[in-house]
Amino acid sequence: MPEEPRTPSDPSGPSGPPASRRDPFAWLDEARASRERAGLVRTLRHRSADSGLLDLAGNDYLGLTRHPEVTAAAADAARLWGAGSTGSRLVTGSTALHAELEDELALFCGFEAALVVSSGYAANLAALTALTGRGSLVVSDAGNHASLIDGCRLSRAETAVVPHAAPEAVAKALDGHDGRALAVTDSVFSVDGDAAPLRALYEVCRGQGAALLVDDAHGLGVVGGAGRGAVHDAGLSGTASTVATVTLSKALGSQGGAILGPARVIAHLVDTARTVIFDTGLAPSAAGAALAALRLLRREPDRAARVRRAAALLHDGLTAAGLYAARPDAAVVSVRAPSPDAAVRWAADCRAAGLQVGCFRPPSVPDGISRLRLTARADLGDAQLAAATSTIVRTAPAGAIV
Amino acid sequence: MPEEPRTPSDPSGPSGPPASRRDPFAWLDEARASRERAGLVRTLRHRSADSGLLDLAGNDYLGLTRHPEVTAAAADAARLWGAGSTGSRLVTGSTALHAELEDELALFCGFEAALVVSSGYAANLAALTALTGRGSLVVSDAGNHASLIDGCRLSRAETAVVPHAAPEAVAKALDGHDGRALAVTDSVFSVDGDAAPLRALYEVCRGQGAALLVDDAHGLGVVGGAGRGAVHDAGLSGTASTVATVTLSKALGSQGGAILGPARVIAHLVDTARTVIFDTGLAPSAAGAALAALRLLRREPDRAARVRRAAALLHDGLTAAGLYAARPDAAVVSVRAPSPDAAVRWAADCRAAGLQVGCFRPPSVPDGISRLRLTARADLGDAQLAAATSTIVRTAPAGAIV
Ligand SMILES: Cc1ncc(COP(=O)(O)O)c(C=O)c1O
Ligand SMILES: Cc1ncc(COP(=O)(O)O)c(C=O)c1O
Repeated sequence: MPEEPRTPSDPSGPSGPPASRRDPFAWLDEARASRERAGLVRTLRHRSADSGLLDLAGNDYLGLTRHPEVTAAAADAARLWGAGSTGSRLVTGSTALHAELEDELALFCGFEAALVVSSGYAANLAALTALTGRGSLVVSDAGNHASLIDGCRLSRAETAVVPHAAPEAVAKALDGHDGRALAVTDSVFSVDGDAAPLRALYEVCRGQGAALLVDDAHGLGVVGGAGRGAVHDAGLSGTASTVATVTLSKALGSQGGAILGPARVIAHLVDTARTVIFDTGLAPSAAGAALAALRLLRREPDRAARVRRAAALLHDGLTAAGLYAARPDAAVVSVRAPSPDAAVRWAADCRAAGLQVGCFRPPSVPDGISRLRLTARADLGDAQLAAATSTIVRTAPAGAIV
Repeated sequence: MPEEPRTPSDPSGPSGPPASRRDPFAWLDEARASRERAGLVRTLRHRSADSGLLDLAGNDYLGLTRHPEVTAAAADAARLWGAGSTGSRLVTGSTALHAELEDELALFCGFEAALVVSSGYAANLAALTALTGRGSLVVSDAGNHASLIDGCRLSRAETAVVPHAAPEAVAKALDGHDGRALAVTDSVFSVDGDAAPLRALYEVCRGQGAALLVDDAHGLGVVGGAGRGAVHDAGLSGTASTVATVTLSKALGSQGGAILGPARVIAHLVDTARTVIFDTGLAPSAAGAALAALRLLRREPDRAARVRRAAALLHDGLTAAGLYAARPDAAVVSVRAPSPDAAVRWAADCRAAGLQVGCFRPPSVPDGISRLRLTARADLGDAQLAAATSTIVRTAPAGAIV
């Protein structure tokens, strides 16, 4: 820090130091102190390549991120295409590999077309900003993911936030609106792992001439007989008014995101979506890995059923012991903790016992209730699930048992 | 498209069809038709692994994206860590590899700390939203990149857009503002390749107690003796009030982005930035490739001088022939075209002659003037540069010669 430090004898009159001596980041120390008091300070924990922990925290739902076919595909793509895509999809960042991935993703999920971008976050920003705008109405579920909320903010559309998983509230919000309208929802909510009432939402939208955007980040690879996702499972993929987004970073074990929809929607995104036009295309290694994972899932569709079964086992064991967890509709099982501090201690106790779990505190939880967040994987055996359950129950803080 | 099509005999009264028959995406066809009239329709061109074209369009400034050490590092990282990071940096998405990259990036660029995220776009959203907010003022250069503009919009801060590269305008905008303030600028502007007056901007900010955020996407690896970037070159890295963002997708030939700054700024981002907390960590292969590229640049620092020399040669040849191009401060050389259509035809004629150039049209250009955008690379030889120059001059439309 080359700048001269403020000396304790600095003359700071009643109106504070003159602007030229003001520290523009002094407020950060205040903000940190108040997060410390609230138990909301985070530190990054850099894991090693093999921590020896049982991982119930990552989103590698199908156990594919370290599958040799998937990592070999990442390596091959880097060697064939280079480590980066070198530019926007509109300039040099589109390769035949991106096109192949888009074609197979669209086909698998039942959509006419797909567009791959650098993250699921970017996919949601793209869809919301390009398909809505000033003068249009977005109706957004109160439990939606941060990237959807940011997309609503960026869109400049009027946004009506409606109660969680309530199609009748969506109907009411749409009622009487004359212009363009779009309802947006997670398919499986990231915090509690519960499913959105997609079919009912679709009917409401249809009845009122609105489009439906579904973020299937936690549905792809997990929901539906063959893991084609919650939108496909609800029979909505390929309809003229439904658009889905997915991420390549969870069940497909890689990085990136995609928007799926009618061809005219995808063409519109190519022409207008800022996170498509102004962002570098996905790295070839990530595209290659996602494509290999998708092909593995097509070959071994029972991986989807296995992850759902593992989540159900976790839920049943935990609730039988008196913990509070919503019934999982996909791979995520969330267990309530009495406070942010208790959640952090609980997660640390699990870790000390060899189990890694997620710990969600404000602002990552819409309702302010801290949770342990457990994610099931297709490659977890029954003994591992039982051991994990018993660790979580044994380390539970008093207030967590209901 | 399973939905029943509208038949031509549909009874649509004066107020249009009833809501239940309304096509919520009908407006897309209108929007497309108007883009067609304006010459603004884009199609993705999926390149093959070896197109045979001379590439003056990508952002692989140092020629590292296909360097065997870089692609081997991508492959090794995928094999060791898996194809994806499996979660948010706060959960399972931080590896020792991410930490290594952050340490070396911070050291190389002269900052106390660094934080790696999934893209340069996400880095800019993170910095702007976490370091500003309601009640604070952001002063933003009119030529700033889309990701900075989106960051301003998301931040909910009051945003003053000031004329391009004008420190006195920044001073005026800051004047009289009492609360938190931050000025934000590209270091090298992505469209014309011109440099921001960083030192003067810093002095203005210092004098008024404001922070300075610099997007060094096009400076890293290119500007400064050893390619440490424009912020380092201006002597600003490591100062208490300067924050920089970089991308790993251009000179470092990979994917991803990073925020660089004082440790307390980086800690604040970890706790509060939405594109850090709610986005999956960068794929290990991309982190590994960027780290290998960084080490190569440290070993071969003359790559930075070579790319600057190549850009200067391009500029000199083109302007000598009467084309209009701003003097490049880094690797980007932009040549004005008389219209969007002429720019598209010009780029197509170059391509037919074996040369790939970028073509920027609205909305990718802030002033509405379409351009061919050329990017120099450290690995281009003089003969290639001369051939490229002659192709561009030979195919230039009449209105381009001034
Ligand atoms: C529901 C949901 N949508 C979108 C995202 C963002 O996807 P990505 O991490 O690939 O950017 C996530 C999580 O990361 C998510 O949980
Ligand atoms: C100035 C500038 N900032 C940020 C970005 C975004 O970086 P990334 O493509 O890595 O998301 C770009 C280009 O892509 C850019 O030109």
